[in-house]
Amino acid sequence: MHPTTPLERVAIDLGDRSYDVVIGTNLLDHRATFDGLPKARDAVIVTNEVVGPILSQRLSVTLQSVYPRVSTITLPDGESHKDLTTLNAIFDSLLERGADRQTTLFALGGGVVGDITGFAAACYMRGVPYIQVPTTLLSQVDSSVGGKTAVNHARGKNMIGVFNQPLRVVADLSTLETLPQRELIAGLAEVIKYGPIADEAFFNWIETNLDDLLRRDASALAHAVKRSCEIKARVVGQDERESGVRAILNFGHTFGHAIETGLGYGEWLHGEAVGCGMVMAADLSVRLGLVDAAFARRLTQLIDRAGLPVVGPRLGVERYLDLMRIDKKAEAGQTRFVVLSAPGRAVLRAAADELVAEAIEKHTR
Amino acid sequence: MHPTTPLERVAIDLGDRSYDVVIGTNLLDHRATFDGLPKARDAVIVTNEVVGPILSQRLSVTLQSVYPRVSTITLPDGESHKDLTTLNAIFDSLLERGADRQTTLFALGGGVVGDITGFAAACYMRGVPYIQVPTTLLSQVDSSVGGKTAVNHARGKNMIGVFNQPLRVVADLSTLETLPQRELIAGLAEVIKYGPIADEAFFNWIETNLDDLLRRDASALAHAVKRSCEIKARVVGQDERESGVRAILNFGHTFGHAIETGLGYGEWLHGEAVGCGMVMAADLSVRLGLVDAAFARRLTQLIDRAGLPVVGPRLGVERYLDLMRIDKKAEAGQTRFVVLSAPGRAVLRAAADELVAEAIEKHTR
Repeated sequence: MHPTTPLERVAIDLGDRSYDVVIGTNLLDHRATFDGLPKARDAVIVTNEVVGPILSQRLSVTLQSVYPRVSTITLPDGESHKDLTTLNAIFDSLLERGADRQTTLFALGGGVVGDITGFAAACYMRGVPYIQVPTTLLSQVDSSVGGKTAVNHARGKNMIGVFNQPLRVVADLSTLETLPQRELIAGLAEVIKYGPIADEAFFNWIETNLDDLLRRDASALAHAVKRSCEIKARVVGQDERESGVRAILNFGHTFGHAIETGLGYGEWLHGEAVGCGMVMAADLSVRLGLVDAAFARRLTQLIDRAGLPVVGPRLGVERYLDLMRIDKKAEAGQTRFVVLSAPGRAVLRAAADELVAEAIEKHTR
Repeated sequence: MHPTTPLERVAIDLGDRSYDVVIGTNLLDHRATFDGLPKARDAVIVTNEVVGPILSQRLSVTLQSVYPRVSTITLPDGESHKDLTTLNAIFDSLLERGADRQTTLFALGGGVVGDITGFAAACYMRGVPYIQVPTTLLSQVDSSVGGKTAVNHARGKNMIGVFNQPLRVVADLSTLETLPQRELIAGLAEVIKYGPIADEAFFNWIETNLDDLLRRDASALAHAVKRSCEIKARVVGQDERESGVRAILNFGHTFGHAIETGLGYGEWLHGEAVGCGMVMAADLSVRLGLVDAAFARRLTQLIDRAGLPVVGPRLGVERYLDLMRIDKKAEAGQTRFVVLSAPGRAVLRAAADELVAEAIEKHTR
């Protein structure tokens, strides 16, 4: 049993679907982390072949003091397995072990595990409870909060899914210890994002504490995760089903998705593409006359200092524009960009192709 | 354009998921039936290869006066295709035609089409609107109200699905004109069900008007559909996600599922198995001392007069009990039966195997 750091707790206020994000160290090892969840005969940990061998035993031992039966489903690792086939394999496993409508699922892993487990929990016997136990910085600050679940379809990422809020999110910072540095940095891209779109003071804080974050100082990480979740919670609380303001969370993502798709998924990490996408989106904001060039420069410097790419791949401007048109059409039938209207404030705006092209041109090489 | 009968309208009160069931004749042909739905570029009719050729053109013509683009997805017919493969075929078709997050689905068919279309609508891009246009009596009085959607899994019926309320249910009685008499009668089983569990006066009304229902008198059918939907709406409104009272809607279904599974699905129609299952469940209620034998007899006579089976197949009592244990475990981890506590009132009760065995024994041959 490892000592825990004092808990941080962020309340996600969504009416009767409200829940807490608990943040701390070695939470996995303490029964108290799982107090107050609904009674069930079965707890089922859903994890993948990379995270499972490192962490599932720790979680399993703890859950055995809460649930009569604890078992583990191990998925293949990677975005390429986030599909209906893997989803059905989860259903097969659950039915095979006689899981009933009270069975509680624990998503132990990064965004892929969280997205597919949340979706499986929504659909198994028309809904069983689930808990997110995100083990990457990216999933702790992003995908585990907000209730978006999905699998990919051959024709597009995250095309098939539902909104399904977890009962709790357990962000255990000790699970980040084995995370490769490249993935930690990719997660920082989403942390950085919350500053320019919603909180200038947090942006200043990240500038000051970036080195501590990069060397995984627990109290710096705890604050970064907490503040990120708070901001995301506030935005999601205003717009649970993404009909409006929630779109600002996609700052940098339209450009980023174009990079990911243009290069082929997996070439750059999602956070890397978002990092570079934020540079382009900030530049576009300047070109639209919405924010000072000085702030765009500060943001670019921070992204660069974090070790994220600030220059995009030379796909050709037309290719970028095409990829973004497809992305935007698929997402909402709209042609607007998330841009900065001030340090700490984002809005949705249409932008002429020429301006977008200039922003891309300037930041590719 | 055909004349419509005056509309009946049943309000399903589920907070921000409330909707109306509109009931009448030739509703499909009138634009007013679809007034007030959210704007969208695409309307997509999901139907099957039996219903589609008869009805989809009528609906399509009407929808063309409301939506810029109307198209049709035709599924293979039958319960055996209610699976993830067919669900994915719907996603393929939607993505192929560039359907966006406003795209509105119209489920034109019986319970299978309604269940799978409602599920597809819940998951496509995390949720698009859908309208139920049930074309069988069974789906008009049962599956189209309540928001249960699902597909089957090799290990069990309706194991994978979500609760997803439609925006509207359009019960057009003219679509029943081509329904085979055997299916009309199977649908009557669910109509009859609402009397004993919830409304003695409706039970009396069915006794009096059964012949009119059997010869498809429009005003008798309109009343039967309306009253059935009202009762179901009241029960569902108290328990949208089936944690308690909603279970009474399964009166006759535990015995019925045993018959369906024991014979192999498709041998008896669902309504036929429910009809016979109600006979057994009423008998069990008498054995539990909850209701008069005279009422159980009246119910049995009504089911018989409707042309439904009142004697179950000789599967062997042990086989019945086994099948019911699996069914109940899968459904709720409970071992209780829906029984009658009075004419027009149902409750959940545990029952000793011996009593259940006697009820089965008496009504099989």
